[in-house]
Amino acid sequence: QEISAKGDAPAGNNSRVSQIMRFGFPGLDNVRTLKDYVISYDRRNRTANWVFEHLTPENVAYNEYVDRKHCEFVEDESFHPYHRARNEDYKGSGYDRGHLAAAANHRSSLQAMGETFLLSNISPQVGKGFNRDAWNKLENYVRKLTKNHPNVYVCTGPLYLPRKEPDGKTYVKYEVIGKNNVAVPTHFFKVIVMENEKGDFHLQSFVMPNQALPDNINLFNFQVPVDSIERAAGLLMFERLPRNRLKYINGKKI
Amino acid sequence: QEISAKGDAPAGNNSRVSQIMRFGFPGLDNVRTLKDYVISYDRRNRTANWVFEHLTPENVAYNEYVDRKHCEFVEDESFHPYHRARNEDYKGSGYDRGHLAAAANHRSSLQAMGETFLLSNISPQVGKGFNRDAWNKLENYVRKLTKNHPNVYVCTGPLYLPRKEPDGKTYVKYEVIGKNNVAVPTHFFKVIVMENEKGDFHLQSFVMPNQALPDNINLFNFQVPVDSIERAAGLLMFERLPRNRLKYINGKKI
Ligand SMILES: [Mg+2]
Ligand SMILES: [Mg+2]
Repeated sequence: QEISAKGDAPAGNNSRVSQIMRFGFPGLDNVRTLKDYVISYDRRNRTANWVFEHLTPENVAYNEYVDRKHCEFVEDESFHPYHRARNEDYKGSGYDRGHLAAAANHRSSLQAMGETFLLSNISPQVGKGFNRDAWNKLENYVRKLTKNHPNVYVCTGPLYLPRKEPDGKTYVKYEVIGKNNVAVPTHFFKVIVMENEKGDFHLQSFVMPNQALPDNINLFNFQVPVDSIERAAGLLMFERLPRNRLKYINGKKI
Repeated sequence: QEISAKGDAPAGNNSRVSQIMRFGFPGLDNVRTLKDYVISYDRRNRTANWVFEHLTPENVAYNEYVDRKHCEFVEDESFHPYHRARNEDYKGSGYDRGHLAAAANHRSSLQAMGETFLLSNISPQVGKGFNRDAWNKLENYVRKLTKNHPNVYVCTGPLYLPRKEPDGKTYVKYEVIGKNNVAVPTHFFKVIVMENEKGDFHLQSFVMPNQALPDNINLFNFQVPVDSIERAAGLLMFERLPRNRLKYINGKKI
């Protein structure tokens, strides 16, 4: 189902899902649809494979009745107890409970914001210098795109990137926390597609390491080719985006 | 669709799939059905999440026309090039191309055996002491169960198990090989359900480390509770097995 470029308010949840997923699913593993975002869950790592959001000027606008002070982190009971992350896994780990679909992107209702506090939408993130700083800056940047784009599509997820070690071999290595071994991603990605009033698209893709980054970073230094994310994450991004309307990639006219 | 306990020969492929998957799918991520096995593929790690087989006296019986010397390892073109393992990834890695669904379990036709050589069904395995020895011994053990069980169901897959390091934290760490970063699992599991002539079930579950093991190992020392596999792999095993007919678990009457 196609939608207009005007960011019409969603009708029922089915139509909202087709709005959010307008350009295709990056993968189909353990998909759940929430009020205002869609998630694919990685039962082995106890965090998402990806979450998908559709930001409009309306759903990011300030709303005095929708505030994160009313929200609580809760385990996602739609998954088997064997595969759930729990609040106690994070306790004492040194990591923040970092949102993938950001709370402030979902101000249309308290339910919409509340659902971003499901632990399936949470990853262990370094707090100071990352979740509260560099990553937050990227989230703010994405939200501001709605000021001159009626539709902004965002896919966010964790990465577990390989690294060459002194023995000459390459390894994937990541910490796991708590009794339920919740994976601490080495990096996070965001792939963003914004649509302007003319119906032209601009794709930007970012990868940031899950570590304290300097205050004065330039977000655009973290842009990467989207295929590097697709390969590393095992996903395919925006497959149904009409290529003839994709005019810019990472700021470059194509 | 229920089948008899007599191991009737399969009719079409649809009916074969429902025979193989009689007790449910462990997960639904990137499932492909082949002639004589079913696979779920992990596009991030370039190897399977799990493969499922249904062994009968017929499909493991010697057949002079079906021999692995006619088979070749080939990349699985049903997956996007970004997510495929390739033969050159294994070259010079020091690892064998180890079958998950064992070639010798699929002697009903050359096509059936040939499909076990798809690289989606292959994981990097230590050759000497593991693929060619301990793991092979486990595969032989499973095949021999068909001598007194008309139906043997086998789910096999990789594990990436966490380990505590000297810093007191717990990490998942595994090598990746080749240009396509094919994951080298730290362990492999097999969950086996055998059905006897009376229609009673016996479940056995094994985890073996991907390393050279001594010649004289006792396979039964590698038995583990099935839930430890379900938690670590992010899967659910044999959910539709009727619990009142499950009489033995890992050799113990229940
Ligand atoms: Mg955050
Ligand atoms: Mg083998």
